[in-house]
Amino acid sequence: MPVRIDLNADLGEGFGQWRCGDDQALLPLITSANIACGFHAGDPVIMRRVCQQAIEHGVSIGAQVGYRDLAGFGRRRIEIAAADLTAEVLYQLGALDGFARAAGDRVRYLKPHGALYNTAVTDPAQAAAIVAALLAWPEPLPVLTLPGSQLALLATDAGLPVIAEAFADRGYLADASLQPRDQPAALLTEPAQIAARAIRLVSRGELVASDGTLLSIRPASLCLHGDTPGAVAIARAVRAGLAGAGIELAPFA
Amino acid sequence: MPVRIDLNADLGEGFGQWRCGDDQALLPLITSANIACGFHAGDPVIMRRVCQQAIEHGVSIGAQVGYRDLAGFGRRRIEIAAADLTAEVLYQLGALDGFARAAGDRVRYLKPHGALYNTAVTDPAQAAAIVAALLAWPEPLPVLTLPGSQLALLATDAGLPVIAEAFADRGYLADASLQPRDQPAALLTEPAQIAARAIRLVSRGELVASDGTLLSIRPASLCLHGDTPGAVAIARAVRAGLAGAGIELAPFA
Amino acid sequence: MPVRIDLNADLGEGFGQWRCGDDQALLPLITSANIACGFHAGDPVIMRRVCQQAIEHGVSIGAQVGYRDLAGFGRRRIEIAAADLTAEVLYQLGALDGFARAAGDRVRYLKPHGALYNTAVTDPAQAAAIVAALLAWPEPLPVLTLPGSQLALLATDAGLPVIAEAFADRGYLADASLQPRDQPAALLTEPAQIAARAIRLVSRGELVASDGTLLSIRPASLCLHGDTPGAVAIARAVRAGLAGAGIELAPFA
Amino acid sequence: MPVRIDLNADLGEGFGQWRCGDDQALLPLITSANIACGFHAGDPVIMRRVCQQAIEHGVSIGAQVGYRDLAGFGRRRIEIAAADLTAEVLYQLGALDGFARAAGDRVRYLKPHGALYNTAVTDPAQAAAIVAALLAWPEPLPVLTLPGSQLALLATDAGLPVIAEAFADRGYLADASLQPRDQPAALLTEPAQIAARAIRLVSRGELVASDGTLLSIRPASLCLHGDTPGAVAIARAVRAGLAGAGIELAPFA
Repeated sequence: MPVRIDLNADLGEGFGQWRCGDDQALLPLITSANIACGFHAGDPVIMRRVCQQAIEHGVSIGAQVGYRDLAGFGRRRIEIAAADLTAEVLYQLGALDGFARAAGDRVRYLKPHGALYNTAVTDPAQAAAIVAALLAWPEPLPVLTLPGSQLALLATDAGLPVIAEAFADRGYLADASLQPRDQPAALLTEPAQIAARAIRLVSRGELVASDGTLLSIRPASLCLHGDTPGAVAIARAVRAGLAGAGIELAPFA
Repeated sequence: MPVRIDLNADLGEGFGQWRCGDDQALLPLITSANIACGFHAGDPVIMRRVCQQAIEHGVSIGAQVGYRDLAGFGRRRIEIAAADLTAEVLYQLGALDGFARAAGDRVRYLKPHGALYNTAVTDPAQAAAIVAALLAWPEPLPVLTLPGSQLALLATDAGLPVIAEAFADRGYLADASLQPRDQPAALLTEPAQIAARAIRLVSRGELVASDGTLLSIRPASLCLHGDTPGAVAIARAVRAGLAGAGIELAPFA
Repeated sequence: MPVRIDLNADLGEGFGQWRCGDDQALLPLITSANIACGFHAGDPVIMRRVCQQAIEHGVSIGAQVGYRDLAGFGRRRIEIAAADLTAEVLYQLGALDGFARAAGDRVRYLKPHGALYNTAVTDPAQAAAIVAALLAWPEPLPVLTLPGSQLALLATDAGLPVIAEAFADRGYLADASLQPRDQPAALLTEPAQIAARAIRLVSRGELVASDGTLLSIRPASLCLHGDTPGAVAIARAVRAGLAGAGIELAPFA
Repeated sequence: MPVRIDLNADLGEGFGQWRCGDDQALLPLITSANIACGFHAGDPVIMRRVCQQAIEHGVSIGAQVGYRDLAGFGRRRIEIAAADLTAEVLYQLGALDGFARAAGDRVRYLKPHGALYNTAVTDPAQAAAIVAALLAWPEPLPVLTLPGSQLALLATDAGLPVIAEAFADRGYLADASLQPRDQPAALLTEPAQIAARAIRLVSRGELVASDGTLLSIRPASLCLHGDTPGAVAIARAVRAGLAGAGIELAPFA
């Protein structure tokens, strides 16, 4: 049986006339699209178009939900009450699902964005608020998150599917957490190196932490970045490397 | 066979900590709730709560879609491109439908709000943009509007259900259009008079215009207002009057 | 020499068609108006009107600056970078100052709102960001805050005027901090009791904490609330009580 | 006495993490910066930075005021009431002036943006609303607009300085109005041709309309675009051409 992996990336993160990332270049490379839902980025016109394009490319539609903070691109933690956050997540899920259904599919998973992603790793109250939104949703919806996060634990406890993701272009600490971005080696930029890392990670479940520790990680999805210089070249190298290693690329949902 | 009518009203038109109208008083009186979807008013917390309450009261959930204009409460016409308006309507529809489905129902109709309502009466391009959103929606959705409006005509042409509404508390001109609000007699305020007008309208299809002309109108729904002084007293009088006249009150959708 | 005190209150906290608090009732009672600047509440129409009215009543205009969070009324802490917060404070200051100057006066002080007020009490980084905005302002601007707060300390260090405020209707702990709102006795509601408390506070600098400790506090301003039930009655009682005790009511700036 | 002209361009039209146009490339080329004020584009961080940079380059700071419409980039006409528009213009003016004063200068002129620019050309009510804001401003502020526009006429009537601008890269009709953008020859793209056009326009007051008519126009400022492909190259060619023709480049205000 061939090894299989999903490739996810953030899409639709423009707003109005502003653009962010290269959706057109990424769509043929990925299998799951985390589509911004209008709170940290994204607007109705963009969401509709990206949903249609994702379906054309056979890419799964995921709701990339964030804090209501266009000015901060959802990268600033907000001390929002749990019930309010649950409602805000449902609003974003519903809005994207309308576009997905109008285009012939539906939202297939949820992934938090930016500061909400990070907060849900460590903060049980906000993680539980996201889980409450998933439980209120009419059908079980997988959540894409960091393995071991509060969100992963609480979603698992609630019986929801949890999809673990890893980052081939990020440095890891010895405890399998991500290296903070202000440290050297936090972000790898060499396509060939990142592709090699991705192949080893997917085929053998091995990742070498920045201090040399050999980590054992079994992600169901790799996250590709689209908004940094060279990001598309890296995504192409990772996809080509995985395919060349006989690894099957397919959406998890 | 008893005569039957629907009573609709705008609900959920607060935002954040601000309130507007008396949702609690109106819910037991109406059969259809036009719930604001966050663009001219309404926020996720309010939308979620009002959807749950509407279902508890057996009230149909309608998407009250508006221009993206919180500062103007959706009362200012915006020259938005048709494709953009279609996407904005779908976004609002989807967001509300998520809450409706999370609460066990679904959005059952659409009604434009404020300046979008008025624009869709006369502007074929914006009316067509709303119809395009309805056609993109996964299931046929009735639209609640003024009889004879561009929106009514285009939705009918597209094979969509059109629900005609009338206003027992508004003055009408001899051509069955609404009397502009800056004219005397544009707005009636006497509960007993409005209730009598509602009974005659529903039971006999008759409405006396401000100049004395006898109009023939067969609405499927009466619109009750909730945000003006005395509005709840008027709504109570209309409901009691209709019930007392043996008219059945039931949602149209 | 007569004892003198300033009475401040939050004004202009509506948005668009939504209202909050009773500006008309408060204006004749206070000497300083903390006017919302559009980020947590307030809009250009309201700001312009309240500036004009404040000047007519001889009330000082203060910039009530908050987080950019209309949906949360500025009551949710946001982990905003210091440089961004400085710019957001300057933006609000400038916008209000335009209206104040158009009406013949200028902004005379700054008071943070809601979660920003509370954060600036304990968080040196955000407090410093506010001080940086005050230092960038073309003229020295007093800041109205809790005595002993980080904001008070850093503003004092920077050579800025700091105005200490107290709350006659709030319970205090023995360390002179405010009793958390979820504790009993956190909020007093009896006008006569609050007025007596205000008189003792202003004339003798004494306040009895909730545990009976006698605190020594010398505020330059008392904060009156306008958006709670009975708030206007309380404000009237406090003003009448202070005046009856021969205390002069005058703006601090 | 040498002929003199001002070169103006739109700056600071990003929002949050999104960018628009190449502010860094344009700043050394222009003499007046129309800085977005946060309603159609621009945010406090950007406004503060661009004000500082404009002053460093000896470039005049102008308030580029627009409709409150980030999603539409201010390019959609809004039927806003005159009093509301006046307040919104004052708000934007004040906010930018705060940054300008914090950086050691002040706002020196106003230019409407996008749909507001176009509306103010033909709509007396909205043009008058802008003039009302200028009249409320504590000092006389020039307005930069199309010669012959309603805004130019009403501002002149009110005794305000009016600065006429022309576009070297836009086609003109025989009546000296701009060629609609959906017509061929509406937008010129050849740097050398545009530069030659600019030189003739400034030195001799002549512009050849698209139908060959020789127009007589005496602008005080030329508008350079920054957000289209090749815009910076065109701006460089125009500046170099004018300088080479012995024309002095200097701010009008």
